[in-house]
Amino acid sequence: MEEIAVGLIGFGTIGSGVVQILKENQSIIEARTGFRINLKKIADLDIDSDRGVAFDGSILTNDAYEILRDPEISIVIELIGGYEPARTFIIEAFRNGKSVVTANKALIAENGLEIFKVAMENSVDVAFEAAVAGGIPILRSFREGLVANRFDKILAILNGTCNFILSEMTHNPGADFHQALKKAQELGYAEADPTLDIEGVDSAHKLSIVLALTHGIHAPVKNIHVEGITGIEAFDLLMAREFSYRIKLLAIIIRHGAKVEVRLHPTMLPETHPLAQVDGVFNSIFLRGDMVGDQMFYGRGAGREPTASAVIGDVIELIRSKKIGNSCRVPPLGYYPGPLESMDSVLDMNEVVTNYYLRIHAMDRPGVLSRISGIMANHNISIHSVVQKRRNSSGSGSIPVVFITHSAREADILQARKEIGSLEVVSGSATIIRIEDESLD
Amino acid sequence: MEEIAVGLIGFGTIGSGVVQILKENQSIIEARTGFRINLKKIADLDIDSDRGVAFDGSILTNDAYEILRDPEISIVIELIGGYEPARTFIIEAFRNGKSVVTANKALIAENGLEIFKVAMENSVDVAFEAAVAGGIPILRSFREGLVANRFDKILAILNGTCNFILSEMTHNPGADFHQALKKAQELGYAEADPTLDIEGVDSAHKLSIVLALTHGIHAPVKNIHVEGITGIEAFDLLMAREFSYRIKLLAIIIRHGAKVEVRLHPTMLPETHPLAQVDGVFNSIFLRGDMVGDQMFYGRGAGREPTASAVIGDVIELIRSKKIGNSCRVPPLGYYPGPLESMDSVLDMNEVVTNYYLRIHAMDRPGVLSRISGIMANHNISIHSVVQKRRNSSGSGSIPVVFITHSAREADILQARKEIGSLEVVSGSATIIRIEDESLD
Repeated sequence: MEEIAVGLIGFGTIGSGVVQILKENQSIIEARTGFRINLKKIADLDIDSDRGVAFDGSILTNDAYEILRDPEISIVIELIGGYEPARTFIIEAFRNGKSVVTANKALIAENGLEIFKVAMENSVDVAFEAAVAGGIPILRSFREGLVANRFDKILAILNGTCNFILSEMTHNPGADFHQALKKAQELGYAEADPTLDIEGVDSAHKLSIVLALTHGIHAPVKNIHVEGITGIEAFDLLMAREFSYRIKLLAIIIRHGAKVEVRLHPTMLPETHPLAQVDGVFNSIFLRGDMVGDQMFYGRGAGREPTASAVIGDVIELIRSKKIGNSCRVPPLGYYPGPLESMDSVLDMNEVVTNYYLRIHAMDRPGVLSRISGIMANHNISIHSVVQKRRNSSGSGSIPVVFITHSAREADILQARKEIGSLEVVSGSATIIRIEDESLD
Repeated sequence: MEEIAVGLIGFGTIGSGVVQILKENQSIIEARTGFRINLKKIADLDIDSDRGVAFDGSILTNDAYEILRDPEISIVIELIGGYEPARTFIIEAFRNGKSVVTANKALIAENGLEIFKVAMENSVDVAFEAAVAGGIPILRSFREGLVANRFDKILAILNGTCNFILSEMTHNPGADFHQALKKAQELGYAEADPTLDIEGVDSAHKLSIVLALTHGIHAPVKNIHVEGITGIEAFDLLMAREFSYRIKLLAIIIRHGAKVEVRLHPTMLPETHPLAQVDGVFNSIFLRGDMVGDQMFYGRGAGREPTASAVIGDVIELIRSKKIGNSCRVPPLGYYPGPLESMDSVLDMNEVVTNYYLRIHAMDRPGVLSRISGIMANHNISIHSVVQKRRNSSGSGSIPVVFITHSAREADILQARKEIGSLEVVSGSATIIRIEDESLD
């Protein structure tokens, strides 16, 4: 049986999963593909720790260039993450005629244009299914199975840590963010420093990649409206329940003609929406194609084996295409063949029109509701529902008032929030949670 | 821009969808792929009817061989369905060096071995994503994204007509099968002769294809245990609700070592199972991979645009692989490269062990329950629940008694059913609905 030599750079959690799958499922992979994947070398700075998988220790090196310069190795798996030295290693692999499989969402999202350009110049390829939604084959579906569709709407839960925390807060009424985060850390679902997850940066990297594949738009995270989940309070989950909503951190891409809304923030969804039932560390992608209609994909978006499964799927795909001809796949597994930003452009966040939940802490005095709703009316914000039912028990004199709006413009909402916040009867700035509910107008 | 000439044989509903998508989404497809798909000829016996799509009438012919022998056409789309002349046309396309895209589930399921053999002999390819679950890219996911997984469990809703009927019966308590079928026909979700759908044959063809792709086993429908939904009564839906179950027509593949359970029948599922919420004409595939864990795919499994979307996705995939090298993809898009039935084999249906719902119509007399449960005990069938609460009001003297069993062997259940049916206090044969509930033992 033909053997294909591959090298692995980065022997952490996912790297160990790659070793495990290649060993445990070797016979399945050989039967399905007709070739054998020979993991010839593994490079990592740490060549001593026990990874809990059996492998031939002699293939381990602390020098990535032993892989990058090995003429027998045709595919390099990059699993060190981050920008450098990952970027340098990947470019070096390309220059040596090797294709690359990576799970590096940050690098692809921020440096994708460079990565794909150098890959094409060297007639090699790069595959990165593992960068988005772990084991769910969603990038391949966008790129291949659904390629004939215009994507009118994509709503996606792309970070298991945030989804776990929000699920905990949903199902344990009164549990606050810090309690839920602590539980996630105890269970290994959140890192000691959870910033990249809870602030939405990890999800935004994935959103950026999905945007490129589905709309041909390259948008670094700094150009995307990103909000994490740290501002969500137990009270918001209680209110969501009262309106039959769930709160999810959603990556959102909605098309309006040639303009595309792109945003990442906590979102209220009707509890009957397919995404509303996705709990715990699971990821899910809901999409509306102009031809296929509504679809949903659901699965584990992180973790050792699911992510390694996607990595090996990509390795096999690269081998299959290399076996046909030793040239770059046309177009590359990555972005569009033509210049990006050619078809669509991102709608200014200020121009987004959607429904809003506003939580305002106001003094419990006559006339307050009138002043707040007056400001909203001045900014063309029409109110769908108001809830003000809890009498203050803390003695501070302020109570939460919650508004659900009809469709309103983001810029109007922000201006109204500013004016409301400056009222002496209001304390602090209103909390805004956008709502994705097609039954509202 | 490079043009690729394709020909379409079969200008019915899905064929019209192909013409529509190629027209409406031409610019999207060109931007994403870098080439233009030129639908050069359409063949159909009916060249007069209005299909509701605009196209150049001069490309229409009633002679399929104008496409099959056109040297400029490199890809043939076969959408006439059925065995002949579809099989002959496909083989002729292969012999003329053309690859084929088809939605023909019956032909692939029953004649797949021949089709793939001739394709390989002629170094061409055949793609058939549209044959299973319409617009959901599930075959591609099995073959590529999830290729590193052993598939331990697959449960799938693959027929929208049956799912619509069962959903109607679920949400309109008391509605019987014939009322629900009539509604499906009125809405265009069931054909005038619905036999292939409601008897499970359509689902079984799809199950056969999924089995080949996931386990390397070629099983024609005659070798698969197939039951349709015509035996399901309104009473069964009421009972399902009482046990917090839903009834779905499920294609089931469950692995036990090197043996695989393969069956297609109405199945009770806990209402908390992700598939239980899939209502109406939607399809859905739940899978458990040894590495990715649980995943679910959901979308429209039939209809003009969703199915045509899958057809065009396949056309593009074939063009992409042809552009790399004009040889057969290795392995073909179809089955395994090696001999089928090499790895796994199908478990004898008699040896299947699962949980059962039995509905027995018995006389309301002392001792009847004891005699029935005695027969079950003799066959090692342990009873989990019994419900006998409706007094007969029709005066016939028989009332339905429902049993839920612990895990039992199919052969034992069938033998017990036979013996119970021969009791003079029992009328008719027991209705069996198998249960897929991991919380039962």
